[in-house]
Amino acid sequence: MTIYNFSAGPAVLPKPVLEKAQEELVNYKSSQMSVMELSHRSVLFDEIIKNAEKLLRELMDIPENYKVLFLQGGASLQFTMIPLNLAQGKKALYVNTGAWAKKAISAAKQIEDVEVEVIASSEDKNFTYIPKITKDMVDQDAAYLHITTNETIGGIRYTDIPDTGDVPLIADMSSNILANDYNVSDFGIIYAGAQKNIGPAGLTVVIIREDLIKEGQNIPPMLDYSVLAANDSMYNTPPTYAIYIAGLVFEWLKDLGGLDEVLKQDQEKAQLLYDYIDSTDFYISPVAKEDRSITNVPFITGDDELDKKFNSEAKNYGFENLKGHRSVGGMRASLYNAFPKEGVEELVKFMKNFEEENKEK
Amino acid sequence: MTIYNFSAGPAVLPKPVLEKAQEELVNYKSSQMSVMELSHRSVLFDEIIKNAEKLLRELMDIPENYKVLFLQGGASLQFTMIPLNLAQGKKALYVNTGAWAKKAISAAKQIEDVEVEVIASSEDKNFTYIPKITKDMVDQDAAYLHITTNETIGGIRYTDIPDTGDVPLIADMSSNILANDYNVSDFGIIYAGAQKNIGPAGLTVVIIREDLIKEGQNIPPMLDYSVLAANDSMYNTPPTYAIYIAGLVFEWLKDLGGLDEVLKQDQEKAQLLYDYIDSTDFYISPVAKEDRSITNVPFITGDDELDKKFNSEAKNYGFENLKGHRSVGGMRASLYNAFPKEGVEELVKFMKNFEEENKEK
Repeated sequence: MTIYNFSAGPAVLPKPVLEKAQEELVNYKSSQMSVMELSHRSVLFDEIIKNAEKLLRELMDIPENYKVLFLQGGASLQFTMIPLNLAQGKKALYVNTGAWAKKAISAAKQIEDVEVEVIASSEDKNFTYIPKITKDMVDQDAAYLHITTNETIGGIRYTDIPDTGDVPLIADMSSNILANDYNVSDFGIIYAGAQKNIGPAGLTVVIIREDLIKEGQNIPPMLDYSVLAANDSMYNTPPTYAIYIAGLVFEWLKDLGGLDEVLKQDQEKAQLLYDYIDSTDFYISPVAKEDRSITNVPFITGDDELDKKFNSEAKNYGFENLKGHRSVGGMRASLYNAFPKEGVEELVKFMKNFEEENKEK
Repeated sequence: MTIYNFSAGPAVLPKPVLEKAQEELVNYKSSQMSVMELSHRSVLFDEIIKNAEKLLRELMDIPENYKVLFLQGGASLQFTMIPLNLAQGKKALYVNTGAWAKKAISAAKQIEDVEVEVIASSEDKNFTYIPKITKDMVDQDAAYLHITTNETIGGIRYTDIPDTGDVPLIADMSSNILANDYNVSDFGIIYAGAQKNIGPAGLTVVIIREDLIKEGQNIPPMLDYSVLAANDSMYNTPPTYAIYIAGLVFEWLKDLGGLDEVLKQDQEKAQLLYDYIDSTDFYISPVAKEDRSITNVPFITGDDELDKKFNSEAKNYGFENLKGHRSVGGMRASLYNAFPKEGVEELVKFMKNFEEENKEK
């Protein structure tokens, strides 16, 4: 039985990346050392981190006036670091599009001298769409506007990036980084936990426009972008092995043809699934068509018992982690870059059979 | 040529651990998934994290009223979290024994309403000894006393743990956790970056007495022990692969015979090197004999040019990362649990030859 891993994160990684990591695990480049054993100050690791940054810059076409940081703590620590670094004594604007946006909002509200304002929300329709943001909604005195470009749980994503005027746009891009056609220059900060499209859990990538890095703010050093940037992500020991794997993933993406090609494949995979869902009344996509995520595709039958049956049979069939998030139920297929197209074809086949067998109920 | 890796961290890992990780990398326990691809909510990962905790509890004999947390951010983030969680509106006591103690002190001073007091220091003799701490030096109203049980750069360590009365003793044990005979119950909190004696960089282990976990303090969630503990280290996605490797290291330690046996081996390794240093005037250990670290052994010839020559020839001989920290110069042999005794024997052999060839100069 072939296993397909639909996990929302930590998620499937490219097979060639894992095979290369396996080959090199005990003895990296004839050093007789594992990458895990390399000093972060060594020549070999210096090559690894510089190469990872170079590849990411190429792939995302990151302008020179942006710093790339390899940090720890996940997107969740960024939820605190962003208002702490950028919005003290100021207003911070947020768009509420679901579970992850809410976490970012709630962490910002905890910072004493930051005034948090939610300028738009799709909570009225259970986060099934992306609210439209126009420039006149964005207070030009605000420190930033924060959006979540893809909601992993709700399965919605921004197709168009809002125009915020001179207010920096900050994006939690954890679940669709490297799977979109956004321009980095439209953002002040892009951040992402690695465990979806980049590499193993425990690494956070932050891409930050240099003018947003402010010194002398008396912020704890591990939370201070100016300290972390001045030390090139080496204020303390970085998560070296996760950075190595991320570098291998970036290389794999480049070899595939870069983000244009990968995005084309991602769109094809998602289309396969959405087309089938739209062709039948048996399955329902709860999300507004124009805002559908191509990385996280939730769907339901509309009958909780049937969803349960589906999930149980799907697991026996070799589909791992297809169950929807515990907060929303149903099913969710996460189709990150490394998820193979055959897996989607198999899923559609399985869904058709399940529909045949259960449609009378 | 055999390579011996004397790195102070990230450091050498047990060969059997790396070989097992290699074997399982692409396909963990016939799941057809890598550990890096497992959802942190999956049954397989749940087993991994629970087993790692169980083994660590066994090895260190951790009492039931202590929580074990697997976090991110390194010891450096703990430098901020500890005063933030424990000492707001209170006095926090520190012992200054070198580079790492200083970093902890400086981070604590940044927290606005914490009064930091350094009650003892060995700075007068360039951090070559551990100052004696007696109970009468410990203000019984203080939130805690913080010590660094082993200074990785200076090469000194606590042999006896100070009696602090009712004041919780907090220890940065990054470089000698699992290589000592301390009692966990003498501490309020023990914390350690993993990249020396536990596993790969990017994981931080925190062992915290439950009464020190306070709720409702309005601390950012990723820095709040009560949030992290209530979620069993899963408030957000933990560094799953690093936890897996740590578990394998704990298993290896258990198979070796536990910490008593490992400590015996560590002491033998260190003794080999110190005995030779003490037998000649050519090499000098800059550290007070009774406070010598068994994990990090700095030594010098007393001649900077000769040290340079030593380091250059040592590298050609296959000794990696033997160079002393850039802040102190000379040489430093880090002899963590996974460092093989043969490596120390080889080092002593090399040192003898080098002495023979250079003693006239």
